Amino acid sequence: MTIPDTCAALVLSHGGRAETIGGAGLADAAEWLEYRQISLPDPGPDQVLIRVALSPVNPSDLLHIRGEYGLSRQIGMPAGFEGVGTVIGTGKRAQALAGRRVSFLATGSGAWAEYALADAAAVIPVSPDIADSDAAALIVNPLTAIALVGLAADSGTRALVLTAANSQLCRLMIEPALSRNLTLIAIIRKAAQAAPLHALGVQHVLDSSGADFAARLGNVCRSEKPRILLDAVGDQIAADIFAAMPAHSRWISYGLLSATGPRLPDMRQFVFDNKRIEGFWLSRWLQAASPEHREKAEAEVQTRFASGVWSTAIGTRLTLQNTIRDLGRALRAGGKVMIAPDAT
Amino acid sequence: MTIPDTCAALVLSHGGRAETIGGAGLADAAEWLEYRQISLPDPGPDQVLIRVALSPVNPSDLLHIRGEYGLSRQIGMPAGFEGVGTVIGTGKRAQALAGRRVSFLATGSGAWAEYALADAAAVIPVSPDIADSDAAALIVNPLTAIALVGLAADSGTRALVLTAANSQLCRLMIEPALSRNLTLIAIIRKAAQAAPLHALGVQHVLDSSGADFAARLGNVCRSEKPRILLDAVGDQIAADIFAAMPAHSRWISYGLLSATGPRLPDMRQFVFDNKRIEGFWLSRWLQAASPEHREKAEAEVQTRFASGVWSTAIGTRLTLQNTIRDLGRALRAGGKVMIAPDAT
Repeated sequence: MTIPDTCAALVLSHGGRAETIGGAGLADAAEWLEYRQISLPDPGPDQVLIRVALSPVNPSDLLHIRGEYGLSRQIGMPAGFEGVGTVIGTGKRAQALAGRRVSFLATGSGAWAEYALADAAAVIPVSPDIADSDAAALIVNPLTAIALVGLAADSGTRALVLTAANSQLCRLMIEPALSRNLTLIAIIRKAAQAAPLHALGVQHVLDSSGADFAARLGNVCRSEKPRILLDAVGDQIAADIFAAMPAHSRWISYGLLSATGPRLPDMRQFVFDNKRIEGFWLSRWLQAASPEHREKAEAEVQTRFASGVWSTAIGTRLTLQNTIRDLGRALRAGGKVMIAPDAT
Repeated sequence: MTIPDTCAALVLSHGGRAETIGGAGLADAAEWLEYRQISLPDPGPDQVLIRVALSPVNPSDLLHIRGEYGLSRQIGMPAGFEGVGTVIGTGKRAQALAGRRVSFLATGSGAWAEYALADAAAVIPVSPDIADSDAAALIVNPLTAIALVGLAADSGTRALVLTAANSQLCRLMIEPALSRNLTLIAIIRKAAQAAPLHALGVQHVLDSSGADFAARLGNVCRSEKPRILLDAVGDQIAADIFAAMPAHSRWISYGLLSATGPRLPDMRQFVFDNKRIEGFWLSRWLQAASPEHREKAEAEVQTRFASGVWSTAIGTRLTLQNTIRDLGRALRAGGKVMIAPDAT
């Protein structure tokens, strides 16, 4: 197989970081992305070059495109954090991965491209039992789900609260949480989202747009005593939930669906009730986890996809060429949007 | 010595807890306190009865009087958390304390009374080198100062930020912090407060009412990289300081001088920068500390007062009879307000 010198990619139009954040969705992809040919560098000694089969559009990708993520942007770098593909070139110390089908974090370039560079430590050879549609999104959401549920279970709480509970990520958390005997309190924003969550075994589903929300929240906090809030939003509703939770509660923020932060009523809940607000970022978790811990989590992820306990609810499938035009609409349509670079 | 059946006290007019908080000071003591005779119970097996010589008015006393503290109020119980006095009665298992001059937390009643009940574990026999004016306020502020500086030093930060830095408590923190090689960044609200803090060795004093505050704050955060904020206020300025601090910073709230909480800009500082907001409460620290740790801290406190490194800046001295009338004015006048029950 010959490796070309250039390939097509969706690259970032802006560099650096943004002062403010934009919230969920992406109104105008043309403002942020450009479709063009990029040159293909050779992999470094610990890197691999991957022909990308499929790459998801995750909320973190949108944050990064707009400069709201934890990494500074480089103009002209391909977007896209993860995907699935085939290793077609390797550095000296990564030859064991040659030819393998891998899920990967595109740590050397970006995944919304025909080819992507990744550090060998950021690729996971995947079982043939796992379809491309699951393997493409095997790392960001699934490892976050395993890590967050582990963190909740290790805290000793018996119950936990999830905001934006209808998200792909929250759905992944349900089975691992229930299998660890955690009671789930799911916060949704539309009544129609309740039934599918109940069907997955979630014990309490509360619609924050309902008139009785505050009363129901108070009741469930008193009866279940959740001391962990896993929050993807960061809005006033999250702050109100946190205020209703008992002493020693932790608000763990891992997503930024709200463009504006909450107002805290006062600081008593920190001083007297020993509550705290903190954050979770998978990048930090991956760096801090021991190799054994990380491999165990990766194996758990693969087992769940291979056995069908987990599956990715696919939405619109885009090409590199039509992504800029169709991405906004595809995101609004729901399901996991996938980009298929299709270099063959 | 005969122990009377009743004594004079300043008792709480309201029970329970308040929904909102009132901020610094106390506008109308007559709304919250009543001067009257109370009956004197016998000490339990692990308790002592103390004739109170002097008791300070701490910010936490005002919070408790208004129902804003971490403990529920009982109508008719004397106010006042700490003081100095002489043990004049003991339970069976507390006889070793008979006749001793002690600093105490009035864990069995309240210190703004001619007599107070305390658990033996909550009294500290004090050296004759320490004046009543220092011994009266030996526990709440001094142990908090030692605990907070210890917490900052243990965190590994090289610098820390103090809000309301002109307070009695912050002044106590200065020498212990400097002796542990911590650089201090003191935030004040009036330019006139700067000189005394510089004189005590504080390296950076920033007036939050100054037009150049944001720029100076940004500069000092970049140069000193403080990762601990010890905050007694809980207002928007505290939130702005926290936002200017580097990754991995901790906002430790220990006071409630602001009646309204801050708005957080968004949750990125938690997710990507690993910052967190938490609280400190001396009651929790005292329960969690090992006996050795606690004794070491108490010894440090006594040594500093006995040697004159610390001294309490006394303000108005009140009697039980004139406190309700004069407390508001005395608090505005500055210095530590003291109540002298004077039962002799």
